[in-house]
Amino acid sequence: MERVVIVGSGNLAEALAQAVARSGLQLVQLFARNAARGEAVAALAGTQWTADPARLADADIYLISVSDKAVGEVAAALPLPAGAVVAHTAGSVPLDALPAHARRAVFYPLQTFTKGRSVDFSQIPLFLETDDESLRPALEAFARRLSHTVVWADSACRAKVHLAAVFACNFINHMYAVGEGIVRSAGLPFDILKPLLAETAAKALDAASPADVQTGPAVRNDLHTMARHRALLAADPRLENIYSIISNNIWETSKKI
Amino acid sequence: MERVVIVGSGNLAEALAQAVARSGLQLVQLFARNAARGEAVAALAGTQWTADPARLADADIYLISVSDKAVGEVAAALPLPAGAVVAHTAGSVPLDALPAHARRAVFYPLQTFTKGRSVDFSQIPLFLETDDESLRPALEAFARRLSHTVVWADSACRAKVHLAAVFACNFINHMYAVGEGIVRSAGLPFDILKPLLAETAAKALDAASPADVQTGPAVRNDLHTMARHRALLAADPRLENIYSIISNNIWETSKKI
Repeated sequence: MERVVIVGSGNLAEALAQAVARSGLQLVQLFARNAARGEAVAALAGTQWTADPARLADADIYLISVSDKAVGEVAAALPLPAGAVVAHTAGSVPLDALPAHARRAVFYPLQTFTKGRSVDFSQIPLFLETDDESLRPALEAFARRLSHTVVWADSACRAKVHLAAVFACNFINHMYAVGEGIVRSAGLPFDILKPLLAETAAKALDAASPADVQTGPAVRNDLHTMARHRALLAADPRLENIYSIISNNIWETSKKI
Repeated sequence: MERVVIVGSGNLAEALAQAVARSGLQLVQLFARNAARGEAVAALAGTQWTADPARLADADIYLISVSDKAVGEVAAALPLPAGAVVAHTAGSVPLDALPAHARRAVFYPLQTFTKGRSVDFSQIPLFLETDDESLRPALEAFARRLSHTVVWADSACRAKVHLAAVFACNFINHMYAVGEGIVRSAGLPFDILKPLLAETAAKALDAASPADVQTGPAVRNDLHTMARHRALLAADPRLENIYSIISNNIWETSKKI
């Protein structure tokens, strides 16, 4: 599988297009409905853009990187050449969202992608799935051209990985945002939290288990400090609730260790 | 203020003792009740240990780094020399936990400390407070020997900073631990999440505001994916609740931006 078409122009499609282009594989086309983004992403990756199914390029694999709910519809509408592989890149979408008659697969990169932000694709774990046994060696070889970490996982396993990523990425970013809101209410910039944020991540990266390096009032069950914190959040019942249930879960979890 | 005594032998006392020893200030003694930890931390920082108030060394500043609830009692029990400064290092403890007759101050380093883990103290924001105006220049000069970032903050401001740190450190570490639990339930090691974890922190460190780089189903209000995630958590109602209320807060917050 040398010739690749990427379908989509979102943040993941942008990162994927550049990774494919850099890998030595042939990125023969970017297919996307959004003309402005499609042209921009194709240009970044040094390939051509089209939105016209009649002009869809011939390729060995079509990587469909569109919104979760559009995966099935987009895949069904593409006039794929016989024998081509169609793979979607979504963590939480089952394999069978793709047409049953296709040589279908999943190619899920476990990472957060932001427009204009470059990532080292070789470090990103890739989760593969297919129901076409004959496809497995070629799909794995393709994935290994792009990443050092390739994992076979069925849709149920991948759904768990995607859920874990929501906690370990989306919810974490929201905790940063909550922290920012609190320091701003004290007249301080977000920057004041950055050394703490960096060290917290560095500790977890060095840890066998993050539970081993948990600190703070909740793990000590310091009720007095937690009561003061909740009082500071009294004006925002949603945040006070988040504070209470996460603190409770830290304490309940730590007791089991 | 050249001569320093550190009181305590916890994780922060350990980091502080080493930072003072490296700074060129004189770490004249470590005072701690716990003999094993006291001797170990003193040895790490190349100083002497005592638990005997009668042998408390003469110093310019006594940094009290003990558990939040012990600060007042420990400070009151120390036979401090006349004119010496006593400062506690706790984020959420008011200045007036220290004896009113003392030259008292707060010296709060905004960081997470772990036994045996070395940190670059010069990068840690230090929050200072005192009710002795004459002490301010010397306290600030002392703090600047240890860190590039020194901020004056009253107890109310510092309490907010400490609360922000709970979100941006303690809760984040717990989200890592939850993520670990979920990938382990799929038969995968915590390591599989580390590239995502590192990139999430790197993005926030580069961001003016973490809200600008929020990704995931909650910020897209992708109800279908969130319903699938909650179904995966049905066996753990506490986690399902955490998932729901954080997702809700991400969406409610994003609408306001």
